[in-house]
Amino acid sequence: MKAIIKIGLKPGVLDPQGRAIARGLNDLGYNDVKDARQGKIIELDLVGEDKVEAEKQVKSMCEKLLANTVIENFSIQIED
Amino acid sequence: MKAIIKIGLKPGVLDPQGRAIARGLNDLGYNDVKDARQGKIIELDLVGEDKVEAEKQVKSMCEKLLANTVIENFSIQIED
Repeated sequence: MKAIIKIGLKPGVLDPQGRAIARGLNDLGYNDVKDARQGKIIELDLVGEDKVEAEKQVKSMCEKLLANTVIENFSIQIED
Repeated sequence: MKAIIKIGLKPGVLDPQGRAIARGLNDLGYNDVKDARQGKIIELDLVGEDKVEAEKQVKSMCEKLLANTVIENFSIQIED
């Protein structure tokens, strides 16, 4: 079983990495780029078959270790 | 228009960040985690309406600046 976790800064939180990407692209001549935000994607290989239990576990992992819930949002997707 | 770009290490390329995540989760007692891989997700705000043209542009951005195509794969998704 796989879990795909997307972690990104909450709207309104300053994203200097995203800002640098947008500016870098503008400097290269890509003037259609107005803004950029950067986040993380984490793919976990999990043992077990119970998707509901897996999602509960992964939510707990995000809250305890993977995401900083003060400034970051996360979303979880469980796949076979 | 929005472009969602996912960038991850190619299979077989060593991912020390992913390894650290997997070990950290195991140390916290999440023993169902066998392996982890970490990648980036970049969300671009784009001016313009032409999705085909946008996808071509974003592919060029990935090749020139955003991804290291020697060791990384990327995928692009264009949304309204």
